[in-house]
Amino acid sequence: MNVNQTLELINKNIRTLKEYHLKPEDTPVKLNQNENPLDWPRSIKNDIAEFVRERPWNRYPNFVPDELKKALARFSGLSPDNIIAGNGSNEMLLDLLISLTQPDRAVIICQPTFSLYQILIEGLGRKAQILYANDDLTYNEKNIIDACVKNPKALLIICSPNNPTGSVLSESHIREILDRHKGFFILDQAYVEFGGYSAIPLIKEYPNLIITRTLSKAFRGAGLRLGYMLGTPEIIKEINKIKLPYNINFFSEHVAIVALSRKEELEETVKLIQPQRQKLFDFLKTLPLDNVYPSSANFICIRTGNKNSLFQYLKENGILIRDVSSYPLLENCLRISVGSEEENELLMQKLSHFFINHT
Amino acid sequence: MNVNQTLELINKNIRTLKEYHLKPEDTPVKLNQNENPLDWPRSIKNDIAEFVRERPWNRYPNFVPDELKKALARFSGLSPDNIIAGNGSNEMLLDLLISLTQPDRAVIICQPTFSLYQILIEGLGRKAQILYANDDLTYNEKNIIDACVKNPKALLIICSPNNPTGSVLSESHIREILDRHKGFFILDQAYVEFGGYSAIPLIKEYPNLIITRTLSKAFRGAGLRLGYMLGTPEIIKEINKIKLPYNINFFSEHVAIVALSRKEELEETVKLIQPQRQKLFDFLKTLPLDNVYPSSANFICIRTGNKNSLFQYLKENGILIRDVSSYPLLENCLRISVGSEEENELLMQKLSHFFINHT
Repeated sequence: MNVNQTLELINKNIRTLKEYHLKPEDTPVKLNQNENPLDWPRSIKNDIAEFVRERPWNRYPNFVPDELKKALARFSGLSPDNIIAGNGSNEMLLDLLISLTQPDRAVIICQPTFSLYQILIEGLGRKAQILYANDDLTYNEKNIIDACVKNPKALLIICSPNNPTGSVLSESHIREILDRHKGFFILDQAYVEFGGYSAIPLIKEYPNLIITRTLSKAFRGAGLRLGYMLGTPEIIKEINKIKLPYNINFFSEHVAIVALSRKEELEETVKLIQPQRQKLFDFLKTLPLDNVYPSSANFICIRTGNKNSLFQYLKENGILIRDVSSYPLLENCLRISVGSEEENELLMQKLSHFFINHT
Repeated sequence: MNVNQTLELINKNIRTLKEYHLKPEDTPVKLNQNENPLDWPRSIKNDIAEFVRERPWNRYPNFVPDELKKALARFSGLSPDNIIAGNGSNEMLLDLLISLTQPDRAVIICQPTFSLYQILIEGLGRKAQILYANDDLTYNEKNIIDACVKNPKALLIICSPNNPTGSVLSESHIREILDRHKGFFILDQAYVEFGGYSAIPLIKEYPNLIITRTLSKAFRGAGLRLGYMLGTPEIIKEINKIKLPYNINFFSEHVAIVALSRKEELEETVKLIQPQRQKLFDFLKTLPLDNVYPSSANFICIRTGNKNSLFQYLKENGILIRDVSSYPLLENCLRISVGSEEENELLMQKLSHFFINHT
């Protein structure tokens, strides 16, 4: 067997899949990954470092992370039976796609959105049915409902607030979709602490609703890779069968428990970021951009004919943002995470300077 | 929609899947999970606790864990392009099954073996073709080769040393399989540091060979959940497309790098466990058991008509072992992990006592 013959044996869905890649860049101000600008308070990190010293590393985590599930239950107002935790909402999404889809049923997604949805759908050999946002990048609710009514067994995945646009589905639209859609509805709410309606109360009403959440954003924990899903116990029990045993390590599990017990401290950043987002939005509106899209998340999407030169200029000035222009409908678009007040001031100063020289 | 209607929408492969579950037991001496009896040296844990304090938690890990891949490359004598790392070899196995199989091709496994193989194969809607071990629980190499020759596109998964039997495939048998088998061959070598042939050198010769390894066993890191796969770069590049982005957290990544840089210290346990295994094996042979199976791993599988009472007796005496009697061919079998010298002494003492009263 040579390599080419062996490559032929690989599943075709994987062979044809595009690689998802992010080039590492060493830039002092990182506004490219929607990270929280603040690290955890030193006192919490010290406590956890102490736990790391004491906990035996040679022992497996518990088969079921009961304490974490209880903490997530308290946090979300549900019960531990409503919950599965994993390595970021990415792992939850993979488990959900394996469990809730089959080759002959479509998975409906609304582009532009988080690129991993389509990668996993196609990698697993499922068919993505792609809807598109309105011109102003808001969700086209009528199209969503039409598609659901036509495909009552399809899985619908929606991100709200949406990455990379910042747009949201309102409570009434989420309810309307759930009232009309018979298939599963995965609602990715990774950014919901920053704005938009949290649909957790709807889980008790609709057994086909699954919500994914994360500690990566409002909880400042991108490095921890801790996400979770919330759903009806009977459904969660089924999905749990394909969840890998011992999926999260003792560190993530413990840190997440501590995070939830000190949520007031950690969520302080939301109160810090929301006014910065407003300030940045108002400022961006004064610039000669083609568009600045309202956002309920911790980032803002803009459109400008100067996309490449602006991106480069900011990078040369130590600020890394994200070029999202290859997403559907996002020609000439850039996504800027809302950083700390200092980062935001620096960004606005550099943006001013750039546009003075380019207009 | 009510819950029952919603359950009907779940993928049938998941609905029919059995739950994999391990009941937590609070027993002082844990010989039930093939864990390493030794924790990490305090000095390493202190260094890493310091890293935990300093590393910003709000920042994602690198998109590609380059430093870890380099460390694993040095350790295995291969290059970073040969490697993917993940949350235990479990995650690697899921990625491999998604990438290397398709619904119309069998996945060959040899029972009794690690139960997750069949769970994931069936959960993903693939067909398991099940071969069986010889009566003495050694691999039946002739059957394996016959099955491969008949199914040249099948994926073969073999665990060597095998969990829960301890049996191995020799270098010549692995080579013979690779010379005759055209499909992929996943060789799970989670326990190889404790004995048996490490097939890493064969990766340069056979592009269809993928080896999975872990830091859970010889490296004392069951709590860390760090596993990896090794294969030909062109194949690894394809599998990497379905690996979840940012799958491992900063803690696992850093700890693994440190572990590999201090492998002599950590692997000391292998030298400790091997003679304990021999001692336990020799002792078990003196007991009135139906069988004691030779093992190249850090556990020993025994068969006894006293299975239930022995299991209970040990548990009541503070020693938890694993009942593996529900595995194919393992009626009346128990699996005992090799613990520390003290644990081993206690175990042998309790075993003696039990059999004095039961013969």
